[in-house]
Amino acid sequence: MELKNDLFLRAHRGEPIERYPVWLMRQAGRILPEYRAVRSKLSGFKELVETPEYAAEVTIQPVDLLDVDAAIIFSDILVVPEAMGLPYEMIEHKGPWFEKTIRSEEQLNLLDQNINVEERLAYVLEALKITKRELNGRVPLIGFAGAPWTIFCYMVEGRGSKTFSESRKLLYTNPVLAHELLSRITDVTIQYLKSQLVAGADALQLFDSWAGILGKEQYTEFGLKYIAKIVDSLSEAPLTVFSKGAIASLQDLAHLNCTTLGLDWNMSISETRQLVGESKTLQGNLDPCVLYGSDVVIEKETIKLLNSFESRRHIVNLGHGVYPDIDPKKVKVFIKTVKNYEI
Amino acid sequence: MELKNDLFLRAHRGEPIERYPVWLMRQAGRILPEYRAVRSKLSGFKELVETPEYAAEVTIQPVDLLDVDAAIIFSDILVVPEAMGLPYEMIEHKGPWFEKTIRSEEQLNLLDQNINVEERLAYVLEALKITKRELNGRVPLIGFAGAPWTIFCYMVEGRGSKTFSESRKLLYTNPVLAHELLSRITDVTIQYLKSQLVAGADALQLFDSWAGILGKEQYTEFGLKYIAKIVDSLSEAPLTVFSKGAIASLQDLAHLNCTTLGLDWNMSISETRQLVGESKTLQGNLDPCVLYGSDVVIEKETIKLLNSFESRRHIVNLGHGVYPDIDPKKVKVFIKTVKNYEI
Repeated sequence: MELKNDLFLRAHRGEPIERYPVWLMRQAGRILPEYRAVRSKLSGFKELVETPEYAAEVTIQPVDLLDVDAAIIFSDILVVPEAMGLPYEMIEHKGPWFEKTIRSEEQLNLLDQNINVEERLAYVLEALKITKRELNGRVPLIGFAGAPWTIFCYMVEGRGSKTFSESRKLLYTNPVLAHELLSRITDVTIQYLKSQLVAGADALQLFDSWAGILGKEQYTEFGLKYIAKIVDSLSEAPLTVFSKGAIASLQDLAHLNCTTLGLDWNMSISETRQLVGESKTLQGNLDPCVLYGSDVVIEKETIKLLNSFESRRHIVNLGHGVYPDIDPKKVKVFIKTVKNYEI
Repeated sequence: MELKNDLFLRAHRGEPIERYPVWLMRQAGRILPEYRAVRSKLSGFKELVETPEYAAEVTIQPVDLLDVDAAIIFSDILVVPEAMGLPYEMIEHKGPWFEKTIRSEEQLNLLDQNINVEERLAYVLEALKITKRELNGRVPLIGFAGAPWTIFCYMVEGRGSKTFSESRKLLYTNPVLAHELLSRITDVTIQYLKSQLVAGADALQLFDSWAGILGKEQYTEFGLKYIAKIVDSLSEAPLTVFSKGAIASLQDLAHLNCTTLGLDWNMSISETRQLVGESKTLQGNLDPCVLYGSDVVIEKETIKLLNSFESRRHIVNLGHGVYPDIDPKKVKVFIKTVKNYEI
């Protein structure tokens, strides 16, 4: 099916665009009353993730309500460890929790091997198919996965953490085990992302939420190495790598074989542009807190961001997921400002 | 009283040293059974902070037990907002909690003004005096305070947070109020640090724990501006500025009028050395997780760090506070490795 609005995909590929495309990380859910209405009918977050019809419905909501230039499938990065044999619960107001964790060879051996990814994650693929059909070509559909280092963090720690010191400990106490686990996550992630493309995703994004807690050398060894493997296996697809906090590794990120780099609000657009030249699209990176400001502040800060672009290879987004208490009206001011900006 | 070991102070000033001095952030407390023994006699963390004899006792413990080259007064950065009229509680396993927060003019007006810092924080100054006397010149004594931005974060948010979005929100919704609060914190902090010097501190450190959540421009406006004021008011003292996560602002940090910059484990020693030349001492920055490794790993990583120094202007430390579950034996391996290293 031909896309009516393929601006987002053209921006990925560095093709001519008439204006900058815009979407928001975490736009599917969190801030919309319409999302909360769907959510309240269900037992919890996981039922929403695991029920394709509902996941498709909340994926499309921001396209209808916020007028964004791309939809991102409603799902969770933790479906991958679960598919590998490490189930999780999402505890209200607390976050994810795993009963089992991987900190030893014995625990690693309890993970399922040679899994059928399409079978285990059929509910995500089905949600993509439904969404693709119901979007009816309005905007492109983004599939995603967590980057191996971030997934590793949860599998070792078993829950969120400020320091992820258990995960980082393993890099020093048992680097062989760490690499084995990272390799397995990488293999499953490659299969999963390929399946997402087959199911209807037009583009992909890798989220490395905990990139910033590793020093530069360790991120090269335990993070970027596996991201590069994934990217190289998917080099045909428009793909964004978003390594939050990896400001010390921008030079290495610039050499990845992906179309697009996602920048957090701490990363400099102009410095990154220096590094990538015209070889890559940059995505981001308005401080999510700007959306707490008045309409005037939002317009001013958004235009400041847009004026700072020295190339047309840009996709506009926040520098992190939208915060849950942001008023959807404020998001609309941001989106409208981007859409009205003449390039 | 003359110091028997003034290596730490000489390193601050860039004077000749026979080996690199070493100490640990959060060495006073947390990991030592001897600390926990003192703590268990008391009602909680705050009683320890507020009882000068006990605070002095646990300050000296790591000098006796770990053989570090400097003592840091056992206290908390949140004594400053409390002195300003915003009392806090330290909730076990949860962290600090403030009943009142500052998010409006009205709330700002409830803060005490023109406070007598020496009176309100007499217990810290008394702890410094006792410690100084009991140290008997063995090693220098470090006083400290939180940097204004970090203190602001707690006063606005009222507790710890992953994003400190309430605090960052205020920068967009009411920058005038934000600057007023930051100015007041700065004034109190300058008085407080001067009093610490009078009470016996030989050196000072400013902790900006949440520097890394601000984009570069905002950190310049709401963070560095106030740090510079403090530093300029105390330019006679050996003073370390530790702006955790402010990797995008290293160039600006390099221009501060302080003797020493503290680096977290994400910051590059060699890049920072390029920026500061021989004008500043660098403190840090071993990944705290290295201390989870075997003795061999600790020695290897410590020597790798020491070998990377291109100047003698270094004070060795971790890149963050020591994690609470680290075995003190491992800390000793780190300290011994630094002390045995020939420069």
